[in-house]
Amino acid sequence: MAHQTVGQAGLPDDPRAAVTEPSPSCPVEITLAALRGRWTTLLVRELLRGERTFSELRDALPALSDKVLSDRLAQLTEAGVLDRERRSGWPPRTCYRLTPQGRRLGPVLQALWDWGAERL
Amino acid sequence: MAHQTVGQAGLPDDPRAAVTEPSPSCPVEITLAALRGRWTTLLVRELLRGERTFSELRDALPALSDKVLSDRLAQLTEAGVLDRERRSGWPPRTCYRLTPQGRRLGPVLQALWDWGAERL
Repeated sequence: MAHQTVGQAGLPDDPRAAVTEPSPSCPVEITLAALRGRWTTLLVRELLRGERTFSELRDALPALSDKVLSDRLAQLTEAGVLDRERRSGWPPRTCYRLTPQGRRLGPVLQALWDWGAERL
Repeated sequence: MAHQTVGQAGLPDDPRAAVTEPSPSCPVEITLAALRGRWTTLLVRELLRGERTFSELRDALPALSDKVLSDRLAQLTEAGVLDRERRSGWPPRTCYRLTPQGRRLGPVLQALWDWGAERL
C-alpha cells in the first residue's frame, strides 16, 4: 500500500493538517467526537440499515437503557448525523433516520472496521 | 452515494457485525481504542510522515509533555501501531516508526478527516 500521509498527499494546503496541538476544529476530532461514547457506533449501524423508531432501536439493542438511548440520539442529532420525522397516522410514529451527512458515516465505519478486523 | 451498510454490503456473514452490545472484540472498537486519547491521532500523523526520534516528536508537538508523549508511544506500541528501533552510531538514536499495520491507519485517518471536513 502507498505510504499515505494525511494532510500531505490528499490535502497539501490545508492549514488544519499542520496543527501542533489537539483542536476541536480539526476534522479528525470532529468525526471522533461524533462517534464518541458507548453504543454510538452501534446506533449508527442500526440506522445505516434503515430508519427506526425509538422502540425498534430498543428492540435491536436490548441491553441499551432508554436513558442512554435518548442521550445518544440527542448527541447524534446535535452532530448532524440523524434527524427525526413525525409520521401522521394512528398511532403517530416518530422515526429516526440518518441525514445525508450521517449516511456518509458508512465509509468511515467501514474503514474503522477494516483496520480493526486486520488486527485480530 | 450508495446507502452503505456496515456488516451487510461488505461483510455479509461476519457475526461481529451483528453484536447487540458494545464489545471490545468488535473491529470498530479495536480501531477506536487504538486512536483514543488526546494527541494520539497527531502522533500518528507525524509518524505517517516518516520515522521520528523522541525529541523530533517533541519538537513537532511542543505543547505535548514528555510524560504524555511517553504514555501515547506506549499505547500505540501496545496497539501494534508503532515500534522502535535502536540505531547504532554515536550518539545512539532510538527511532519510532509505524509498523505495516500502523501505516494502514493512513486511510482510516483520511476517512475520519474527510467526514469532519464536510461538516465544517
